[in-house]
Amino acid sequence: MENREKPIGVFDSGVGGLTVFRELMNELPKERLIYFGDTARVPYGSKSKETVTKYSRQIVHFLEEQDVKAIVIACNTASAMALDEIEKEIDIPLIGVVRPGAMAAVNATKVGRIGVIGTEATISSEIYSNFIHSIKEDAKVIGKSCPLFVPLVEEGLWEDPVTEEIARRYLTELIDTGIDSLILGCTHYPLIKRTIGRVMGDEVTLVNPAYETARECRHLLEEKGLLNPNSVKLSENAYTFYVSDEADKFRHFANSILPLGILGAKKIDIERY
Amino acid sequence: MENREKPIGVFDSGVGGLTVFRELMNELPKERLIYFGDTARVPYGSKSKETVTKYSRQIVHFLEEQDVKAIVIACNTASAMALDEIEKEIDIPLIGVVRPGAMAAVNATKVGRIGVIGTEATISSEIYSNFIHSIKEDAKVIGKSCPLFVPLVEEGLWEDPVTEEIARRYLTELIDTGIDSLILGCTHYPLIKRTIGRVMGDEVTLVNPAYETARECRHLLEEKGLLNPNSVKLSENAYTFYVSDEADKFRHFANSILPLGILGAKKIDIERY
Repeated sequence: MENREKPIGVFDSGVGGLTVFRELMNELPKERLIYFGDTARVPYGSKSKETVTKYSRQIVHFLEEQDVKAIVIACNTASAMALDEIEKEIDIPLIGVVRPGAMAAVNATKVGRIGVIGTEATISSEIYSNFIHSIKEDAKVIGKSCPLFVPLVEEGLWEDPVTEEIARRYLTELIDTGIDSLILGCTHYPLIKRTIGRVMGDEVTLVNPAYETARECRHLLEEKGLLNPNSVKLSENAYTFYVSDEADKFRHFANSILPLGILGAKKIDIERY
Repeated sequence: MENREKPIGVFDSGVGGLTVFRELMNELPKERLIYFGDTARVPYGSKSKETVTKYSRQIVHFLEEQDVKAIVIACNTASAMALDEIEKEIDIPLIGVVRPGAMAAVNATKVGRIGVIGTEATISSEIYSNFIHSIKEDAKVIGKSCPLFVPLVEEGLWEDPVTEEIARRYLTELIDTGIDSLILGCTHYPLIKRTIGRVMGDEVTLVNPAYETARECRHLLEEKGLLNPNSVKLSENAYTFYVSDEADKFRHFANSILPLGILGAKKIDIERY
């Protein structure tokens, strides 16, 4: 197979990265995509940098074995903790979600005050904050963890008064700081973007790192001449899904997010890689 | 150390098992207790039987190394998936939360209709249902998973209109079935027992497996002559806590549940066992 025709690998600690997968489908409709969700070892947020790097390296090895032309880390924790180290070890492009999200937020803010919401691990790691300061030293970054958002999303309460009430409790203190852009720093959050937007109001630009990452991925492939020139044949599967545990639960959630029916996900033993 | 003076080991996938620990403190005030929370690999509910058994076996090996006289599996998933297999491999008593909870519910019901609430994994495993039918063949068991209860409890919303609203949504269909006893089939749920009781009404007996397990543990130790005859000296620590990750977060939650200040939890590398 020609390099340009090879698939793009995408991985996450679980199902959240499917929002990035969805954006890649939209942005790069001609590309083959392979998704790996580490459902046996989710969540990464509570694990050490060493552990997350080890897990990410195993997944990268697995995806290299699938002969991918680029890899997207669709996971905030792994992007923050493992990308720099693993990037040096491989020959294909590696794209994380943090950099594109941070860049877009810096471009969007007029007042220089940026909010970041995410899991406790993402917020306390200050990864977005550090990255933003590396490109805009004087930006003020205000982080807020929203632990109930992931379970509310996974319960399907995307448009629900309970989710809106919880969002109000979490976000009121952010509104009071006068931010004008807000990074959805967790891959689940784009699914409740409308609720978050209603609570934050029209003055605040919501930055979706999933979308920004898909755009960055397209630019990078373009630059390197790696865009697939031909559409995938209808007789072929353009999208393949792998998980490390519980393929059934994954399929159910995937089908609620993606605009196509997932026939199935293959379970693999990731610890072998 | 004499066998009777040895500690009891207690483990859970995370912090929820502390409700069982709390009942053991009440029921067996003279006993030394060692708690292990597998905070690096939580949750177990979404993992396969094979994975949960492997993890439980590692923890049992760790607790055996601490020279415990008995082990309490303070986790519904692990009790359901791993107890039978591991029980055959060790020489000390192994007590799970499922059997005592099921027995108490059978004793409590007059109409023969029992409800069970728990995580998706516990409910779909039908472990309570199977156990109840093995002691009362004609009982009708109605299970209902309540995935948001754990994150709501961990967020501290024990008495909160949001928790009550979610409880109403989950429990209304159970009330309509005419059950008269309800098993709180997840270790976190006793912390919102009052809310659940308000929603279910006075006619329904709430069965707390944590409490029943502590009683069963006392009976078993009594029977085997293993009760500690002496109180632990004030100069000694009666209670020790281990976790596999994030000892700080654990301490915070533990202090909100237990009637004493936890000085600290030691982090160990459970994958070594």
